[in-house]
Amino acid sequence: VDSRRSFVSDNHAGAHESVIRALAQANTGDATSYGDDAWTEGASAALQTAFGARGGVFFVFTGTAANILGLSLLLRPYEAVICPDSAHLHVDECGAIERVLGGKLLTVATPDGKLTPSLIAPSLVDRGDQHRIQARVVAISQATERGTCYTLDELKVLGEFCRGEGLLLYVDGARLANAAAHLGCTLADLAAQADVLSFGGTKNGAIGAEAVVVMDEDRVTAAPFLRKQQTQLASKMRYLSAQFLGLLEDDLWLHNARQANAMARRLADGIRDVPGVELRQAVEANMVFATMHPAHIARLQDLWRFYLWDPAAHLVRLMTAFDTTEADVDAFIDGIRLTAEHG
Amino acid sequence: VDSRRSFVSDNHAGAHESVIRALAQANTGDATSYGDDAWTEGASAALQTAFGARGGVFFVFTGTAANILGLSLLLRPYEAVICPDSAHLHVDECGAIERVLGGKLLTVATPDGKLTPSLIAPSLVDRGDQHRIQARVVAISQATERGTCYTLDELKVLGEFCRGEGLLLYVDGARLANAAAHLGCTLADLAAQADVLSFGGTKNGAIGAEAVVVMDEDRVTAAPFLRKQQTQLASKMRYLSAQFLGLLEDDLWLHNARQANAMARRLADGIRDVPGVELRQAVEANMVFATMHPAHIARLQDLWRFYLWDPAAHLVRLMTAFDTTEADVDAFIDGIRLTAEHG
Amino acid sequence: VDSRRSFVSDNHAGAHESVIRALAQANTGDATSYGDDAWTEGASAALQTAFGARGGVFFVFTGTAANILGLSLLLRPYEAVICPDSAHLHVDECGAIERVLGGKLLTVATPDGKLTPSLIAPSLVDRGDQHRIQARVVAISQATERGTCYTLDELKVLGEFCRGEGLLLYVDGARLANAAAHLGCTLADLAAQADVLSFGGTKNGAIGAEAVVVMDEDRVTAAPFLRKQQTQLASKMRYLSAQFLGLLEDDLWLHNARQANAMARRLADGIRDVPGVELRQAVEANMVFATMHPAHIARLQDLWRFYLWDPAAHLVRLMTAFDTTEADVDAFIDGIRLTAEHG
Amino acid sequence: VDSRRSFVSDNHAGAHESVIRALAQANTGDATSYGDDAWTEGASAALQTAFGARGGVFFVFTGTAANILGLSLLLRPYEAVICPDSAHLHVDECGAIERVLGGKLLTVATPDGKLTPSLIAPSLVDRGDQHRIQARVVAISQATERGTCYTLDELKVLGEFCRGEGLLLYVDGARLANAAAHLGCTLADLAAQADVLSFGGTKNGAIGAEAVVVMDEDRVTAAPFLRKQQTQLASKMRYLSAQFLGLLEDDLWLHNARQANAMARRLADGIRDVPGVELRQAVEANMVFATMHPAHIARLQDLWRFYLWDPAAHLVRLMTAFDTTEADVDAFIDGIRLTAEHG
Repeated sequence: VDSRRSFVSDNHAGAHESVIRALAQANTGDATSYGDDAWTEGASAALQTAFGARGGVFFVFTGTAANILGLSLLLRPYEAVICPDSAHLHVDECGAIERVLGGKLLTVATPDGKLTPSLIAPSLVDRGDQHRIQARVVAISQATERGTCYTLDELKVLGEFCRGEGLLLYVDGARLANAAAHLGCTLADLAAQADVLSFGGTKNGAIGAEAVVVMDEDRVTAAPFLRKQQTQLASKMRYLSAQFLGLLEDDLWLHNARQANAMARRLADGIRDVPGVELRQAVEANMVFATMHPAHIARLQDLWRFYLWDPAAHLVRLMTAFDTTEADVDAFIDGIRLTAEHG
Repeated sequence: VDSRRSFVSDNHAGAHESVIRALAQANTGDATSYGDDAWTEGASAALQTAFGARGGVFFVFTGTAANILGLSLLLRPYEAVICPDSAHLHVDECGAIERVLGGKLLTVATPDGKLTPSLIAPSLVDRGDQHRIQARVVAISQATERGTCYTLDELKVLGEFCRGEGLLLYVDGARLANAAAHLGCTLADLAAQADVLSFGGTKNGAIGAEAVVVMDEDRVTAAPFLRKQQTQLASKMRYLSAQFLGLLEDDLWLHNARQANAMARRLADGIRDVPGVELRQAVEANMVFATMHPAHIARLQDLWRFYLWDPAAHLVRLMTAFDTTEADVDAFIDGIRLTAEHG
Repeated sequence: VDSRRSFVSDNHAGAHESVIRALAQANTGDATSYGDDAWTEGASAALQTAFGARGGVFFVFTGTAANILGLSLLLRPYEAVICPDSAHLHVDECGAIERVLGGKLLTVATPDGKLTPSLIAPSLVDRGDQHRIQARVVAISQATERGTCYTLDELKVLGEFCRGEGLLLYVDGARLANAAAHLGCTLADLAAQADVLSFGGTKNGAIGAEAVVVMDEDRVTAAPFLRKQQTQLASKMRYLSAQFLGLLEDDLWLHNARQANAMARRLADGIRDVPGVELRQAVEANMVFATMHPAHIARLQDLWRFYLWDPAAHLVRLMTAFDTTEADVDAFIDGIRLTAEHG
Repeated sequence: VDSRRSFVSDNHAGAHESVIRALAQANTGDATSYGDDAWTEGASAALQTAFGARGGVFFVFTGTAANILGLSLLLRPYEAVICPDSAHLHVDECGAIERVLGGKLLTVATPDGKLTPSLIAPSLVDRGDQHRIQARVVAISQATERGTCYTLDELKVLGEFCRGEGLLLYVDGARLANAAAHLGCTLADLAAQADVLSFGGTKNGAIGAEAVVVMDEDRVTAAPFLRKQQTQLASKMRYLSAQFLGLLEDDLWLHNARQANAMARRLADGIRDVPGVELRQAVEANMVFATMHPAHIARLQDLWRFYLWDPAAHLVRLMTAFDTTEADVDAFIDGIRLTAEHG
């Protein structure tokens, strides 16, 4: 089993060798600590340009940290975040927003992990009522935790709605690269409506590096202090920055994301006609959601590793990574077909 | 200037090549995320044995994070930390303890960065008074931010005092390796009186890795959750763990610390008779504190990088690292002598 | 309009004259501050006996404060509260739980403001998973914000479920008196399944006083410190305690609640056959929820004050208080009938 | 002993009968809750005028709450408060600032509880350094916890210094009335340099009421929400406001403070020549600090109640209140003289 590709998560994958190489190349004796070094300057400048960000770029170690830092730049103490109830920051961060920021989340059920103005609107009642936390930030994930992506049009509609309502837009971009690959657009396109975004490296070939991108220079003053306070200031920051340099070189980040996305599509296409298998979300990033017969799932789990997303619904999540190969996928498809046939 | 060794901080140094190599060796395709991997198992087990820790070992990215996680395992919401007013967690973490943990620090002035029972005792008045935060944890740094070390006897006295007073002992071990090297003792010796310690890798040759060591298994339940909540759970944790594997192999951590310490002593010995230079602390780790004539400092800063610790007192901190060489030190000694003579 | 009784909220009512008298009687020169006085001793002891509480009783100023203090005695930093999505502590406290305690709420939709084991169970998945906040406390309101009450049998089922699942039970008793009046049971009956409860005075004839009742002595150590830290330690505490003495004398608290409940029932009975009016919840405390034709609501609001609970659903909340009279209610019934007829 | 006047604290005193009367007079049936009532409108407007405050006035229940709300209007998450190490908010609030606000205090030793620019200046190093919390608010107590008062000139110097350094000034006015009485100035005079102040009613004849006064309208938006979030929004607010109406009528607040101050001066004058008694602070409010022989203190404590402020220094605090009489003071003076003579 061990030698079989894991389809559990893109964080089961290792790092791209170019990232490791970039790390090693940054290991050249002394460099000023805390980000005052050439690697950080280079990676920050490149990302600022790519996003069209007038504010700045701040590297942190984890996706949870990026969400915390990003939201802390946007929220006042009596303001809340509207997010899908599937949002990583609600479900998978062990209450970090509440504990570290003291922030409240107003969650919204969605069919596909995506917010729309009409889904957001009910959370906007009672503005100005002192008893009620005041909705201020809309937090979306791009790509979503359901493997879907907001189109540029959807983003534009959302951005206009937010500006009209005095709301700010935060984008959890742990898989922003996958969205860029799917939409065939630039990072600047994805950032056009946002106030702050994260840009994930970890799930896309880094060993552990995320960037917080601040679009507006008015919102950037607090960022260095809050990053430190939130335990995320790397003393030897060059080793965070170098990971991004590795990902940026020759658009490795985009190639990695394209590969992961293509493998998810290949997997989806390969199993959609398997009896008893039903795809449950559009496959627009690097994950496939499908329902299967429970006996099928059980047999499959003897041989392959993947995530039983919702046991009650017999819903599985099959995730690919930058280094998933066609052979990996085809073997998995065969496995799924074979176990299905023996049901 | 750039090619000259920096004496600003041990975090200006790069990583030891063995650490980079260990990182690269961990890059072998899939591994389960979030610490359920062989590297983490190996590094954790080795550290648990070395410290004699029945609780567990938890890797995080930064020293500030290690302090936050460590203290959060010991504090209830109405309890305070007694620490020297020179403590990193008071001075250099941008209020993380207060903001992230809601914790209060009761600071104590010390001559050398070290706490003693008699320095602690005045903070123990008013126990049981509902108006007063209740002192609960004594936090020491070993080695201290003043380059001094607690002897094993001093630790024993402190430990007995704490147990007698119902206090817990936390050790900020960002430079614990330097203390072990200075005292010629084991990590278990250093941990014998402590409830929780951090063990720093970053300043000792890693790219960015710290361990939180929990001595008592009764205090460990919350640790995985709090690490996640505090934004420090590495998804690809093997790359944190591998750094410690690199440092543990052939006691590299100890050799690194010995080298740094030896270079600080060499530097101190080389400048103690320079006219106008006065050493200000015992040199027991990898730093030298000295006062110099302000004009001397100014000239020296044109050529060398070091930390003007207290401008008003003309006090400088000269810090060595694992990769500081005798030639680096001797050149700096020459520089200090030369600029002194031209005063 | 001003002279007409308000049906907006029980906090539009004034204080019972016995409470004012008790306050005045406590004004007898010096008394030790911070609760070490005869009034506090008397009121605390009486409530402890009435609730059968081995822990203790702690007075605070507001219902939000009582919820914060009560929950803070039960929660560790990585633990969450399961509550109905209609809970005051979720909807009406401007994010106090999240900001002051750093706590996370896991909300559950309910038809009637009441939790059941089957409504709670879905929040208990993922226990032990370090990515997920750990459900620990079930928080119910008795009476609920929907004017319903848990029966003693329902409480027993809930209590057994909680104990079986390792959950603690917190009761927001801002209107506990109304529940006791409805169920015809003792405060001890209401407390039998709970770990901590609040007992509201403010809505039941006090000027502003709530009690936090800690059932188990193991959970009480932190309470004095946390009350102070949470800004709720009254220096002249006798004036809080005296309010409870006023309410306890001759079971005034129970008479007040009975009156409020009876007036709500009278109101409900008086309007249930009005054309276009539909009662929407069981009337088990001092509030009536009803839908009306929007034009009817609009006309009625010209003359009477009440709460348009959900404008989209044309749902109103009509609330009575300890001092609502039969004449007040009958006049309002007439008003409702009259405006309905002119639709 | 019980019938003897307590000199422990001004919160041992009861409430002024006019305050009780004002409370009773506010008990006139329905009134809109949460501050939308005539009493609150009247008291707020009167205080806004008296302070010359363009922002607003917000009533809360306790002094700790007032400090928390006041500071929360001034601080961003990475900013700190500079205060004397004798400040109530550092010593006597059980870590509320740290826990509820996440704020950090930078404490300064003072001879008399008063800050000066030269005492503040050392806390202003490292501004802009991301490792360091950024000093932003200077918090003073007027009168201080040492019974001293800032003169108007001292306030002006402090205010100019703060503005020059980009600092904000918060005034803990739990005993602001005593300062006004001592200085013979208006509340507006005391507020002229401040950004936010508290104005205490509790220690000056109320049962429990404090006002937070916001000078600048730019800082007021958050106040209603934060008061609610911080558990301090009174539902029946008229009973807080009425207390201030009672204190404001015929300048009762000022007469009360004058009486308390006068009794402290009388006490100080009466004991300053007692052998072994040494006054330790200027007596500018309602408290007397004095050292006595330990045997003297012990005998005196058998008969009288006062605060042994610092047992090691044999320092006692003797506090008067609005209702302390000349006879009370003279009896105490006699007691002190008598016990001294029998030493």
